[in-house]
Amino acid sequence: MSDMIVQAQAAKIASLRMFSLSTEVKNRALRSIADILAANSASIIAENDKDLLESDKTGLAMPLRRRLLFGQKKVADVIEGLESLILLEDPVGKTLLSTRLDEGLSLYRVSCPIGVIGIIFESRPDALVQIASLCLKTGNAVFLKGGSEAANTNRILADLIEKASIEAGLPAGWITLLESRDEVKQMLAFDEYIDLVIPRGSNEFVRYIMDNTHIPVLGHADGVCHVYVHEDADVEMAKRIVVDSKTQYVAVCNAAETLLIDESVAETMLPELAAALLDKGVELFGCDKAAEMLSINKAQDWHTEYLDYRMSVRIVSGMEQAIDHINQYGSGHTDAIITGNQPAAERFMNAVDSGNVFWNCSTRFSDGFKYGFGAEVGVSTSKIHARGPVGLDGLVTYKYKLFGDGQIVDDYAKGNKTFSHEPIC
Amino acid sequence: MSDMIVQAQAAKIASLRMFSLSTEVKNRALRSIADILAANSASIIAENDKDLLESDKTGLAMPLRRRLLFGQKKVADVIEGLESLILLEDPVGKTLLSTRLDEGLSLYRVSCPIGVIGIIFESRPDALVQIASLCLKTGNAVFLKGGSEAANTNRILADLIEKASIEAGLPAGWITLLESRDEVKQMLAFDEYIDLVIPRGSNEFVRYIMDNTHIPVLGHADGVCHVYVHEDADVEMAKRIVVDSKTQYVAVCNAAETLLIDESVAETMLPELAAALLDKGVELFGCDKAAEMLSINKAQDWHTEYLDYRMSVRIVSGMEQAIDHINQYGSGHTDAIITGNQPAAERFMNAVDSGNVFWNCSTRFSDGFKYGFGAEVGVSTSKIHARGPVGLDGLVTYKYKLFGDGQIVDDYAKGNKTFSHEPIC
Repeated sequence: MSDMIVQAQAAKIASLRMFSLSTEVKNRALRSIADILAANSASIIAENDKDLLESDKTGLAMPLRRRLLFGQKKVADVIEGLESLILLEDPVGKTLLSTRLDEGLSLYRVSCPIGVIGIIFESRPDALVQIASLCLKTGNAVFLKGGSEAANTNRILADLIEKASIEAGLPAGWITLLESRDEVKQMLAFDEYIDLVIPRGSNEFVRYIMDNTHIPVLGHADGVCHVYVHEDADVEMAKRIVVDSKTQYVAVCNAAETLLIDESVAETMLPELAAALLDKGVELFGCDKAAEMLSINKAQDWHTEYLDYRMSVRIVSGMEQAIDHINQYGSGHTDAIITGNQPAAERFMNAVDSGNVFWNCSTRFSDGFKYGFGAEVGVSTSKIHARGPVGLDGLVTYKYKLFGDGQIVDDYAKGNKTFSHEPIC
Repeated sequence: MSDMIVQAQAAKIASLRMFSLSTEVKNRALRSIADILAANSASIIAENDKDLLESDKTGLAMPLRRRLLFGQKKVADVIEGLESLILLEDPVGKTLLSTRLDEGLSLYRVSCPIGVIGIIFESRPDALVQIASLCLKTGNAVFLKGGSEAANTNRILADLIEKASIEAGLPAGWITLLESRDEVKQMLAFDEYIDLVIPRGSNEFVRYIMDNTHIPVLGHADGVCHVYVHEDADVEMAKRIVVDSKTQYVAVCNAAETLLIDESVAETMLPELAAALLDKGVELFGCDKAAEMLSINKAQDWHTEYLDYRMSVRIVSGMEQAIDHINQYGSGHTDAIITGNQPAAERFMNAVDSGNVFWNCSTRFSDGFKYGFGAEVGVSTSKIHARGPVGLDGLVTYKYKLFGDGQIVDDYAKGNKTFSHEPIC
């Protein structure tokens, strides 16, 4: 226990130093990390081999084993990621608002680091490099906990990142790798030192974190995404978008899980849509009417995230029922309407309470890279602080800076002076 | 218990309807509330008289009784507040970012209501009108809990606001007044229906709320604000600012509690500063050196929020010790440096981890109205979501709207199309 307190205090102290880091030092540190990883790729791969060997012994499931693999290609990928991160604009020190309160009294809202962030992530070792480098670029100290299957790979990566970054000017203690669940449990209690927790993983896991800490959590719950085919939809467009939303990559949170379709066009359009999905190997589960119409099994519920070649289908009485369905059963992630009717699209996009609401395009577009953010911390289904795909600006907060030349409030209270509140151009 | 669940579900449903409220309906509702309060001022004052009578029986402390009073003047004040709120720009539907991802595929980040907000506030009945109207303007459903001393006044105000707003087009269930602590306790468990809790009150109270809910909390801890007199300060300016920061209004969170001064100028400046404070009736408590120099008592600790004519004084070795002191003992609220040295001011403003960092002006300026926000929800010492004085934009979040004409991700994955990511002007 005492070890973790010492580390948490050290991270807090490091984070305070990091408030004043220049863009130059941060980018130099990212450059040094890229170089040290390149220079030590053989050792990294050797450590990864140990993890792979261990995973063979324990019989790790094949998809997880694939994610664990960190070979020459992955090393090159993370180095490329570091290089593009160096090129991104510094998210710290941006002026977000500026107001001249009065002659010689100027207010600025300026972006700044949050402080200490705890991130718990899945087995992929490349996530460690990504997360550490995003925190460095945003000036935050970080606690990292990866999957235990990747313990050896994570250890060498964290050690190399720490070494290279501290030599480049980062303060000692800015990065800490946690290696046990017990350490994570301890971390969750340190709300005095840690400002934000970002859990990445299963729904149950995120829920567990939320239920066990007073630290604010930037959570990603599940992705129960919908495509709603409105009565004014073009059937060819609907087919393309439904198939892409469901099958372009089934194992991700922005893949669609439920197809909603207006009753008035179900008979003409649904069989065609179903055929296109069946053609891609998708098994459908329907509401009573859809099950009968398509001769498919009935859906068990409306809130399952399949992450597989399976999809629920419901025939709705019209847009209001579609909106109600999504707000009741969806997860607030990404929902699309297919229609040629602009007012209908606008109504849908305002009324659906999700982080991403789409008109005539695939749900698979909701992603920080596709949005052009250059980096992605994760996709937030929280409504507070950051929502939807979170780029670097989800890892910063802001402070108000007020520049005066001797102003006191008493002069304004007495009416000797008055506020002008003009924007500063 | 079941009653509260029904109310929470009704609030959630109302909040979903409120996503689509037009500016016109919202402003018409605010206008109707102003009118109904004006038309019923006699009844409101009669209900307030009941609360005042009860408070005489229970021997309510005089400052609390003064806050409880809701007479003709207060009625006029809240109506004026409503009128200025009508004039403020609608915080919902603002485009915060826009990017053309590709030909015909446009992304917008648009502000929108949060959903259902729970606000627990102090005894002043005018706070009820303010909070309800801020939530209405931002399109949020609200649970309100005021001080029990004001039960009768709060009841009639909430009833009138509900009646007028629903007649003007707001959905039933958008506003709910809670009348017991037990109901608050129940509300804190409804994280499924309530999106944000804003507690206003004592430090212990805010801490209690944070410790007893999984709903995100926009918290205001205490205000242990500092004025740091740097060695390059002008003594006359320092005197004016220290006196104003401490005494312009002692009972508020942005009043200064601690004076820090550089060792190198303590002998020349501190006696003058102390004399100016003593002259205003301020009792000083010092570090060992300051206590000896000024013949005053020693400070018991460095994190007490006096909210009174008392101030701690510490002589520091230089700016780094001042920064460390503030980051260790402050509450992240508002801290000022007095200096003629610009690089020193910049170093201080970057390194101090507070929501408001000031140069050469009084800490008393940190306030939503003085900042020109037109309305203030509270002052946040949280770092997440909203920090410092919170205006209407602290009661909204955002969603991403993506407008396409049939785009699918498969085309980009296969390289048939590429993203352009240009800002939309």
